[in-house]
Amino acid sequence: MSDPINTCPIQLTDAGQLRHFLTTEGLPRTLLTEILDTADSFVDMSEQQVKKVPLLRGKTVVNLFFEASTRTLSTFELAAKRLSADVLNLNISTSSTKKGETLKDTLMTLRAMHSDMFVVRHSDSGAAHFIASQVTPDVAVINAGDGRHAHPTQAMLDMLTIRRHKGEFEPLKVAIVGDILHSRVARSQIHALRTLGAAEIRVIAPLTLLPRNIESLGVKVFTDMARGLRDVDVVMMLRLQKERMESALLPSESEFYKLYGLTNDKLAFAHPEAIVMHPGPINRGVEIESAVADGPRSVILDQVTNGIAVRMAVMSMAMSGQLADKNTSADADNLNA
Amino acid sequence: MSDPINTCPIQLTDAGQLRHFLTTEGLPRTLLTEILDTADSFVDMSEQQVKKVPLLRGKTVVNLFFEASTRTLSTFELAAKRLSADVLNLNISTSSTKKGETLKDTLMTLRAMHSDMFVVRHSDSGAAHFIASQVTPDVAVINAGDGRHAHPTQAMLDMLTIRRHKGEFEPLKVAIVGDILHSRVARSQIHALRTLGAAEIRVIAPLTLLPRNIESLGVKVFTDMARGLRDVDVVMMLRLQKERMESALLPSESEFYKLYGLTNDKLAFAHPEAIVMHPGPINRGVEIESAVADGPRSVILDQVTNGIAVRMAVMSMAMSGQLADKNTSADADNLNA
Amino acid sequence: MSDPINTCPIQLTDAGQLRHFLTTEGLPRTLLTEILDTADSFVDMSEQQVKKVPLLRGKTVVNLFFEASTRTLSTFELAAKRLSADVLNLNISTSSTKKGETLKDTLMTLRAMHSDMFVVRHSDSGAAHFIASQVTPDVAVINAGDGRHAHPTQAMLDMLTIRRHKGEFEPLKVAIVGDILHSRVARSQIHALRTLGAAEIRVIAPLTLLPRNIESLGVKVFTDMARGLRDVDVVMMLRLQKERMESALLPSESEFYKLYGLTNDKLAFAHPEAIVMHPGPINRGVEIESAVADGPRSVILDQVTNGIAVRMAVMSMAMSGQLADKNTSADADNLNA
Repeated sequence: MSDPINTCPIQLTDAGQLRHFLTTEGLPRTLLTEILDTADSFVDMSEQQVKKVPLLRGKTVVNLFFEASTRTLSTFELAAKRLSADVLNLNISTSSTKKGETLKDTLMTLRAMHSDMFVVRHSDSGAAHFIASQVTPDVAVINAGDGRHAHPTQAMLDMLTIRRHKGEFEPLKVAIVGDILHSRVARSQIHALRTLGAAEIRVIAPLTLLPRNIESLGVKVFTDMARGLRDVDVVMMLRLQKERMESALLPSESEFYKLYGLTNDKLAFAHPEAIVMHPGPINRGVEIESAVADGPRSVILDQVTNGIAVRMAVMSMAMSGQLADKNTSADADNLNA
Repeated sequence: MSDPINTCPIQLTDAGQLRHFLTTEGLPRTLLTEILDTADSFVDMSEQQVKKVPLLRGKTVVNLFFEASTRTLSTFELAAKRLSADVLNLNISTSSTKKGETLKDTLMTLRAMHSDMFVVRHSDSGAAHFIASQVTPDVAVINAGDGRHAHPTQAMLDMLTIRRHKGEFEPLKVAIVGDILHSRVARSQIHALRTLGAAEIRVIAPLTLLPRNIESLGVKVFTDMARGLRDVDVVMMLRLQKERMESALLPSESEFYKLYGLTNDKLAFAHPEAIVMHPGPINRGVEIESAVADGPRSVILDQVTNGIAVRMAVMSMAMSGQLADKNTSADADNLNA
Repeated sequence: MSDPINTCPIQLTDAGQLRHFLTTEGLPRTLLTEILDTADSFVDMSEQQVKKVPLLRGKTVVNLFFEASTRTLSTFELAAKRLSADVLNLNISTSSTKKGETLKDTLMTLRAMHSDMFVVRHSDSGAAHFIASQVTPDVAVINAGDGRHAHPTQAMLDMLTIRRHKGEFEPLKVAIVGDILHSRVARSQIHALRTLGAAEIRVIAPLTLLPRNIESLGVKVFTDMARGLRDVDVVMMLRLQKERMESALLPSESEFYKLYGLTNDKLAFAHPEAIVMHPGPINRGVEIESAVADGPRSVILDQVTNGIAVRMAVMSMAMSGQLADKNTSADADNLNA
C-alpha cells in the first residue's frame, strides 16, 4: 500500500490554510478539527428556513466528473448552491475528449473562464492531485474520489458523524469492514481517524480484499467478524464495489454476506452502544442486513446530512485559502516586478 | 375505472392546507379556487421585468423524473427558479438504480440532504402517492404525472385557462376528446371540472379508448364527434400517446384523424365561441388540424403560459402547508416529550 | 460564397440597438465597437471577487442546442449566470423531436413560457435567423453557431483579443489559416475585421478548402504559408472540423500539418510580434504545434477569457434592445388600438 502522493503539501497555503482538499493524509489535527467545527455550523444552518449563505456568491464551481456518480455530484451541487455559487456540471467523458482535446487543455480552458473551484471525480488515483498541480493558485480543487487513492470528503463526513454521536475520538475503537483493497474511502478514513487520535483502528476483511502492508498505516487486521467487532464503538461498513472487483477475489455475494455482512447477530459482538455507518448506496443483503441498516444503531442517514455540511465546510475553507494564496502570489509578483 | 388512491387525505394538513399536490380528486372547491387565484397573480408577475419572487429562497426542489419529459421538466424547473429555489434535476432511471439502490433508500437519502420538495414523474400509477407517504411531513411532493393515474398540474393549468377565457365554470359544457383510456390528464381534468361545477362534462372517443365505467365519474359518453361537440364551450383534445398504445386498439393514425381529429369542419358543431385546448406537444394532422391549432379559437399557447403560473402556485402553496405541518408535528413531539 | 442571409436587418431595432446577435455581417462599426467596449468592462469585472451583476436578474435564458457543444454551452451558461439570469439548457435533438413536435411549436412553447433569450446552436445555416424571425420582438436570439454560416460571438471574442493586444485595427495585417470552406468562424471573422477596418485580411488554405469567390469578401487568397504569413500581425488558425470534412478534400492529417500546421518555423514568416489565435479545442500536431500553442505569442487562453466577457456583452445589449423594442411595439399597439 505504498502511496506516491504521500504528504501532499500542495493542499495548504504557506500560512497553513486549506487551499485544496485532496486527501486527509498528512493534514494536521487542528485543520481536521476546524473542518468539523465549520461543518457543525452548517448542520445547524441547514435546519433553518433559508438554507443559504452568500459565502461563494459570484464564484464559479465546476463539477468535473470523469466518472459518473449521481449521488456524489448531487451533494456537491447542493452544497455549492447553498453557498450561493454559480455551478457548472461537466461530464468530461462525453464531451471534450470526443473532440480530442487533452486533459490539460480542458483544465487551462476552464481556468481561463475564471472558474474558482473544481470538484474532481476520476477513476485514476492521483488525478485530483495532478489537476491541483496544474491550476494552483488560481483554482481550488476538491477531491470527490480518485481511483483507489482517496475520498476525503466522505472520510470527513464520517468523522463528523462519529463526533456528533460519540464526542471525543480518543477513547474510541473503530472497525472498518469490507473491501479494503479497492476502497479509497477506507484509506481516507484511516488517515483521518489516526490524526484525530482514535484509540484503535481495525480493518476486517478476507485476505483477498486486504492490501499488503496495511498494518503500516497503524491498523489492526482481522479476518473474522466475531473477533474484529469485539467491543468496538463504531462499525464502518464499506460498499462492495462490484464494478471494481476482479472475478477471482470473492467466492460470491452470498458467501461474502455470510462471513462479513453486518447482521444483528454479528453486531452483538460490538459495544452495546456502537453506531453503524455505511457510505451508501447500500447493497441490502450483501454488506448489511436491512434490520441493521434501518435499526436504532444505524446513523447512515445522518451521514448523508453531514455530507452536505462537510462539503460546504471544505468548499468555503478552500475558497478562503485559495483567495488568500492568490493575493499573496500577486503581492509577491508585485514585489518582484 | 376503479381507483385505489381515491380521496388522498395525505394531500392536506389537518388544518386543510395543501401539503402535497398528488391528484385533483377529492380536493375541495375552495382549495382549487385558491390555486387558480394564486396562479392568476403569478401570470401577472410573469409579465413584469423581473419575473422572480423570493418565496422559495433557500429551499431545495428536486425534480425526480423516473420517466423522461423535457417539456414538463422545463416548466417545473422554470417555476422553481422563478420562486428562487435551488433546483436539482435527477433522472433516476440512469443513476442509483444502476448501483442497485432501492427507491426507498433514494428517497430517504434525498430527504436527509434536506430537500424541501420533490417534483415526481413516474410511469407507475400511484408512485407520487407512495413517495409522499414515505417523506411526509419533511418533503412536499408535487405529482408531475404518474402512470395512467393523474397529472394534476396539467388539469389545473387547463382550469386556469378556461377561467381566464370563460369566467365562471357553472354554465360550461366541456368535451374531452381522444385517448381517454390511457390518459392521466383526462382523469385529473374530469375531477377538477366536477369540483369546480362545470354544467356538463363529455368524453368523446372510440369504444376501444374508453375505460369501463367511465360514466361513474359523472361524464356523458360519446363515440361521435358531431353529437359530442354539439354546443360545447370548451374542447379539450388529448395527446395520442403512441408510446403507450397497444397495437390492437387503433386502426391507424389517419383513421383516427378522420373520425376524431379536430378540424374546422368538426369544430363547427361546437358553440361559435368555443375555445380549443391541447396539453401539447401537438401531433399536427393526427389529433388536430393545423388550421385549428393555430386558429383564433385555439388557446394552446395560453395553456403553456398558465402552466408556469399554476406550477408556481402549487409549489408555493405546498411549501407553506408542508412548513406549517412540520412545525405542528414538531410542536406535538415537544408536547409528547 | 453567396449568402442568402445577407444584411440581416432583423438584428437591430428601429433605433439601431442590438436586438438579436445573428451575424457580424452588416453591423455598423459603432455597434461592433460598443460590443468590444462593453466586453472590456466585463473582463475587468471578472477579475473581481464577486463576478456577478444583476443585469439579467429575473430573465430566462434558454440554451437551445440542436448540435452538441459542451465548451460553447459552458461559456454561454456561465455568462448568463454571471448576469444573474435563470438558465435552462435544452438539448433539442433528444427531446421534443422524439415526440414529433415541430421546431416552430417548440419555439412558440418556449416563448409562451416567457423566455427572454434563446442562445441557438444548430447545424443548419440560417437556423438562428429563422428562429429570430419567429420570436421577434418577444425573445432575443444569440447565434452560437449555425451550420457554415456564422459564429458571431466567436468572431467578436477574437476581435476583443486582437484589440486588447494590438490596439487599433487599421494598421493590422491578419491571416486566417485552415479549413475556410467549412468554417462559420472564418466568415464571421472576415466580416468583423472588414468593418473594424483591418488593413489587410488574408486567407491561407489548400484550394480544396477554399470557397469559390472568397475574394468577393475582400480578402487576399494564399495557398502557401510562407507567402501568406509574411509580415502579418495576427495569425488566426481554424479548427480542422474532421466531423464535417468529406473524405476527398484532404489527403491526410499529417499532410495537412506539414503544409498548413502552424509551427515555429512557419511562424517565423510573420511579424516578430505577431499573436497566434485558435478558437479551440486545439488539435495539437494537426493544426498547430504545441510549442506555438503554449508559446509566448499564443493568446489562445486570452480568447477563452474574452469569450465569457463578449457573451456577457452581447447578451446584456440584446436584452436591452429587445426590451426597448417590445415596449415600442406595445406603445404602437396602444396607439393603434
